[in-house]
Amino acid sequence: MGSTSGHDWLESTYRPAVERAGEREALFESSSGAPVEPLYGPEDLADWSYQEKLGYPGEYPYTRGVQPTMYRGRYWTMRQYAGFGDAAESNRRYKFLLEQGQTGLSVAFDLPTQIGYDSDAPEAAGEVGKVGVAISSLADMEALTEGIPLDRVTTSMTINATGAMLLALYAAAAKKQGAALSAIGGTIQNDILKEYIARGTYIFPPRPSLRLITDQFAWCAQETPKFNTISISGYHMREAGCTAAQEVGFTLANAIEYVDAALEKGLELDRFAPRLAFFWACHSNFFEEAAKFRAGRRMWARIVRERYGSTNPRSQMLRFHTQTGGATLTAQQPDNNVVRTAYQALSAVLGGTQSLHTNSRDEALALPTEESAQLALRTQQVLAHETGVSDVIDPLAGSYYVEALTDRVEEEAQAYIDRIEDMGGALTAIEQGFQQREIQESAYRLQRMLESGDRTVVGVNRFQQEEEVEPPLLRVDPEVGRRRARELAELRTGRNHAASSAALEAVRAAASGSENMLPVLVAAFEEYVTLGEVCGVLREEWSEHRETLTI
Amino acid sequence: MGSTSGHDWLESTYRPAVERAGEREALFESSSGAPVEPLYGPEDLADWSYQEKLGYPGEYPYTRGVQPTMYRGRYWTMRQYAGFGDAAESNRRYKFLLEQGQTGLSVAFDLPTQIGYDSDAPEAAGEVGKVGVAISSLADMEALTEGIPLDRVTTSMTINATGAMLLALYAAAAKKQGAALSAIGGTIQNDILKEYIARGTYIFPPRPSLRLITDQFAWCAQETPKFNTISISGYHMREAGCTAAQEVGFTLANAIEYVDAALEKGLELDRFAPRLAFFWACHSNFFEEAAKFRAGRRMWARIVRERYGSTNPRSQMLRFHTQTGGATLTAQQPDNNVVRTAYQALSAVLGGTQSLHTNSRDEALALPTEESAQLALRTQQVLAHETGVSDVIDPLAGSYYVEALTDRVEEEAQAYIDRIEDMGGALTAIEQGFQQREIQESAYRLQRMLESGDRTVVGVNRFQQEEEVEPPLLRVDPEVGRRRARELAELRTGRNHAASSAALEAVRAAASGSENMLPVLVAAFEEYVTLGEVCGVLREEWSEHRETLTI
Repeated sequence: MGSTSGHDWLESTYRPAVERAGEREALFESSSGAPVEPLYGPEDLADWSYQEKLGYPGEYPYTRGVQPTMYRGRYWTMRQYAGFGDAAESNRRYKFLLEQGQTGLSVAFDLPTQIGYDSDAPEAAGEVGKVGVAISSLADMEALTEGIPLDRVTTSMTINATGAMLLALYAAAAKKQGAALSAIGGTIQNDILKEYIARGTYIFPPRPSLRLITDQFAWCAQETPKFNTISISGYHMREAGCTAAQEVGFTLANAIEYVDAALEKGLELDRFAPRLAFFWACHSNFFEEAAKFRAGRRMWARIVRERYGSTNPRSQMLRFHTQTGGATLTAQQPDNNVVRTAYQALSAVLGGTQSLHTNSRDEALALPTEESAQLALRTQQVLAHETGVSDVIDPLAGSYYVEALTDRVEEEAQAYIDRIEDMGGALTAIEQGFQQREIQESAYRLQRMLESGDRTVVGVNRFQQEEEVEPPLLRVDPEVGRRRARELAELRTGRNHAASSAALEAVRAAASGSENMLPVLVAAFEEYVTLGEVCGVLREEWSEHRETLTI
Repeated sequence: MGSTSGHDWLESTYRPAVERAGEREALFESSSGAPVEPLYGPEDLADWSYQEKLGYPGEYPYTRGVQPTMYRGRYWTMRQYAGFGDAAESNRRYKFLLEQGQTGLSVAFDLPTQIGYDSDAPEAAGEVGKVGVAISSLADMEALTEGIPLDRVTTSMTINATGAMLLALYAAAAKKQGAALSAIGGTIQNDILKEYIARGTYIFPPRPSLRLITDQFAWCAQETPKFNTISISGYHMREAGCTAAQEVGFTLANAIEYVDAALEKGLELDRFAPRLAFFWACHSNFFEEAAKFRAGRRMWARIVRERYGSTNPRSQMLRFHTQTGGATLTAQQPDNNVVRTAYQALSAVLGGTQSLHTNSRDEALALPTEESAQLALRTQQVLAHETGVSDVIDPLAGSYYVEALTDRVEEEAQAYIDRIEDMGGALTAIEQGFQQREIQESAYRLQRMLESGDRTVVGVNRFQQEEEVEPPLLRVDPEVGRRRARELAELRTGRNHAASSAALEAVRAAASGSENMLPVLVAAFEEYVTLGEVCGVLREEWSEHRETLTI
């Protein structure tokens, strides 16, 4: 029933019938506040061309999916983000998930690891092992991956400011296992721009941070060709409150910045672009989210082909991981989160995700218990094996509503990309606080809608319960910090002092020059230099970034 | 990628790419074994006409929904089937569900009530209050509805052989509350044909059973115009193992039999047909189920308009209740049932259901606990209030896959209707065991697929767990049978003997004649004649039906 309608019956009969029947009191709108019409029909796709807008799966512009067979070929990778306590404890959880049928690893790191402090640093106090696993050295990485063949299981690592270091540690652990670097696969998040925008776990100023990333683009293309060198992430901006269209727009603008930085460094587009990956959130607006994934794919294909002149189809394919919306979970009535997550997972699959993390019901309260983590995985298995949605590629294609939505998300996201271009690109816009302000405004709007009741969250502002029983929660061992400190002291005593000192100085030398950082990082970690020691040297060389924005 | 494709690219490029990529080992087929293609596109709807196949919501053939606004106007009715123990206990559960935001009642009756025995009858031993509430007299119906204003809450009653009796009891209770009969609304299942086919809770032979039903058509049109006089049910056939297309075909064939019986009795089509309602299951094949609902609506509209020449749009609208698939639930890992039910609920809503029951996670083990019943309701509330799927009418419309599926379900279901016609109609086909055999074959095929592993049920034949903790289950008070017997003894002592005996004899006289049974039933119940006494008399007059089929 969009504005293009010329259908007589629609105007003379249907619209008056709708007006007579009346509508319930509600805001009918998208996450960005755009109106949602009661009905979509052929009129809404009047000027729409199948070949231009969709094409076939595995064919430009990849709206219907990046592979010709999609889930007919194989299911998405079921990749549950996990990690807590020390490496040995997390290793047990990974093995449990693999036994339960999970098909890829996804490592969560604790805050000290994310910002480059060892577990025994004063800055780490109280945070060791809390929101993820503590990794300070190759010894930890070996324990983390013990008994897991790194040339057979792919691993995703949610790590950014210290992404290059964790990749180097992972590569060193793989080498110790005897795995060929060319055989290891996975994804390293490495998306520092969104850290400045929304997540906040940066260390260094943007320029050296971008250098670490482009160093990885170059090194991985050579050494670990199966590794996705970056996962350009809308997730955290979405969790901070942005709209679906902002998530796409800001993320693709960041992607453009990374590509420009790599090109500037002299890298060849069609060598590094095939290993760029993306990471989206999947929130609750069921069709808008599925449309978002389809729009994002189409837009990236056009950008890479038309703007950058890519001739390699693999560079043009937007491959992505999805995590269901952590911010949509509620501490109240946690079992309701199972339902929310199930719908979000379906939406992501209908959008053609390559891998998926489903949140656990208790994640608004604590890290997931083993039981909750298992149910989250079972959610994906029921979806994959019982619902038949994986039997047909892009089953929503052609739906008047979904195609109209896909076009609209694209249009709104493109407007953001254009604005950011006009400002001089993503980094300049970030430095001016643009994305941050836009996200803040969207988040404020969402919050107001919750308070006014225009938006219902079951169990929070409607259908509340007076007494709630708290489910059993995971408690991280409070002794982990002290135990880690003892282990690190032993490590420092036991290693080859001369070799580790020399390796650390090589890191310093590389940092002040322009050679690729990755080989010296791998070499340092192989001498059991710690993450905190490496980052300490780099802090001295590159300084620390301070938030100076007035938002 | 159906057979109508003439697209060069599809044949020259896409198909070979699919063959190169390969497909996972699986049966890609619908519930009826029809092939599911990897891809659907515009070629699949080449000869398809929007106006002919869909039209607009509230417009013939109602494929997009029976109201012009659908859930933009108001949400579906959230109607959780419940009842156990005695009337007072069930009344407490209903009030709990209404407080939690449920919007309509749905009464489950125990087996003795379903087959016309009082709670103190020898035939009732061990079954009183077990699978539903025990109702033997008006006193019980009063207790069941105590404090629930029957002119404001609609009630669905799952009752068939004794449907007329329970409707009469409900009407009598409403009168005692002071509610006008013209104001009471709800649905009485009353579908005896499917009892002979699949469910087995019949009492009388088909002819007097059909008379009770057509008596209600006539009486309700006059007295309770807001009551749906029948809910023609595919649900139990589906639960017994039939396919989606069989569910539609057999149910619509039964519906034709009821309409013919009513016309034969001299009732006027457009007076009784608007109060015919339907009841479908929603199983796990996500898109096929949504397509099934759309196909069923379109078929019924055509049957009523073209076959019967109806001119009243309300007669042509297939309005339906949906229950998620009980047979899809597993005793293993019961929390997985929350996920299954959530997907099925979404599928039903995308298919345009008028009301919905979502099963509880523990229903494969016992009647739901209060906690599980609440989560089942919360599932509907999250779906309605958080996912945005209710903001757009028939959002799947236009999807190449869904429209092709809708056409296919229609075609297969129509073939069943045609076969049944050729046999002389639904009742004759039932007497010959046709539907029973077809269902048995489908059920056997499903079972074989489970055993061979061609069909995965998570937690049952894959992803099993060794040790399972049984969740807390609802136990029905074992004293309920004895307590009910005492109450019934008191009731029989306390009532007006002369009046109740006379009223019961009036029932006998009506049964052997041709007058409408409903007024005498209401009158008898108002004198506290019991359900068992009424059915005893009718058993004498009409005899009992015995299964004589060799299947």
